Amino acid sequence: MRVMPEPVDELRVAALSPEVVIGDLDGNLARIRDAIVAAGRRDARLIVLPELATSGYVFEDRAEAGTVALSADDPRWALLQQVIPADAVVVVGYAETHGEQLFNTAAVLTRDARLADYRKSHLWGSEKLVFDHGTEAGLVVDTSFGRLGVAICYDNEFPEVPRRLALAGADILALPVNWPLVSRPEGEHAPELIQAMASARSSRMPVVVADRWGSERGVDWTDGTAIIDEQGWIVAFRAVMGATATLSLTAVREKSLPPHNHLFDDRRGDLY
Amino acid sequence: MRVMPEPVDELRVAALSPEVVIGDLDGNLARIRDAIVAAGRRDARLIVLPELATSGYVFEDRAEAGTVALSADDPRWALLQQVIPADAVVVVGYAETHGEQLFNTAAVLTRDARLADYRKSHLWGSEKLVFDHGTEAGLVVDTSFGRLGVAICYDNEFPEVPRRLALAGADILALPVNWPLVSRPEGEHAPELIQAMASARSSRMPVVVADRWGSERGVDWTDGTAIIDEQGWIVAFRAVMGATATLSLTAVREKSLPPHNHLFDDRRGDLY
Repeated sequence: MRVMPEPVDELRVAALSPEVVIGDLDGNLARIRDAIVAAGRRDARLIVLPELATSGYVFEDRAEAGTVALSADDPRWALLQQVIPADAVVVVGYAETHGEQLFNTAAVLTRDARLADYRKSHLWGSEKLVFDHGTEAGLVVDTSFGRLGVAICYDNEFPEVPRRLALAGADILALPVNWPLVSRPEGEHAPELIQAMASARSSRMPVVVADRWGSERGVDWTDGTAIIDEQGWIVAFRAVMGATATLSLTAVREKSLPPHNHLFDDRRGDLY
Repeated sequence: MRVMPEPVDELRVAALSPEVVIGDLDGNLARIRDAIVAAGRRDARLIVLPELATSGYVFEDRAEAGTVALSADDPRWALLQQVIPADAVVVVGYAETHGEQLFNTAAVLTRDARLADYRKSHLWGSEKLVFDHGTEAGLVVDTSFGRLGVAICYDNEFPEVPRRLALAGADILALPVNWPLVSRPEGEHAPELIQAMASARSSRMPVVVADRWGSERGVDWTDGTAIIDEQGWIVAFRAVMGATATLSLTAVREKSLPPHNHLFDDRRGDLY
């Protein structure tokens, strides 16, 4: 008997960062499955994994990426979906092969359904030599707990993207990333994390960031895995390869700022 | 003989926060003049003062604000302009009376010219009971050093505003504010400052924030006066009623991210 999920006010979220080994498709899929099982034990209903978590990121070229790409109908997805808790949604980044095209994609999965495949539309660095551009600037998916926004890494550095998703009704943004470590002043968050905090606060939309740690072919990762609440504050950070937190979707959906303001109604749509 | 300013690559900036006493129009104007003179001694070429610096902020009602409002052609502006260094631009917030209307305005002044009056178009809280809405979402002014963006306080919490100004060619954003102090987690910047840092980094556009300190009629101010560079980092903060820093306009104008990216060209204008 299928357990039907109920809409929730409190959403338990997990941002996971299992080890990713470049080129080790089957090993990465196994580690992702284990991480999903562990998040299920922590009652997570939204589970976010990094960008390109099945493949790794620092490819020599398009041909190499192609060798670890999956199609959206690859039978290996069913094995992964089997371990997803009955009421949960998983967002996981992968290299997607689609005919002659290759995309940097995030799959949105439940145990029983493939809800969406979002193809990254703002490509960073050598990604331009490896992947094709997606044709949506993030997307919003209806799920059992609410409307889920999905974007990937560099997408969020364009303030148009999170804003657009929030205005389209996204309750929360899943943001798989691979953030290369850059220098920053002592005591500051990573710059991309500051942008994600601003995205959240501007629209009262929590952001769930799943980043990489360690290094790959000479690229050090930021280890910026974090759950950002609707006020823009980091409520969970890293925490042994993953972070969990409980967010209030009631707070998310209340866009008024009493007594006189409203985050969305105060926009001057006539002026921009 | 008038000294003609030369275009610059390095821009010396001051964010000033002289004491503001509500209702004390002449006293506030005197303190603003003194602060401008002091910034001139520090060679500042862009000098930013807080929102409503001539009047104070926490008005009982519209009538009270009207008693300390100035028109854009009030003769007292000439006294203020006299102390502006020959090559400098001053941005200062004031309550503007204009016929039957009352605006929360930022004057953009040189010693010899009134370059613009920007009227705040996103009004916060009781401002809606006191002021009329402006009809521009920030503006960009040509100055001797480059293109100056101007917005006021809550304007910047709409990511559309700083982005719009940057895309219109603003080299730097002057942001007079009155940020009421709100609670924040230990070690974090004020939330509005995080949004300003994100505005800067998203568009490589420095942001010069002039805030209030102390309190007024029970409202505590954030004391968030800061100069944020084009990478989004705070390079000067408070520093005894004002902050100064030197910014590179060459860095600001270079929007490419070698070898494959460009902050503006990577926008997917076809998708939003």
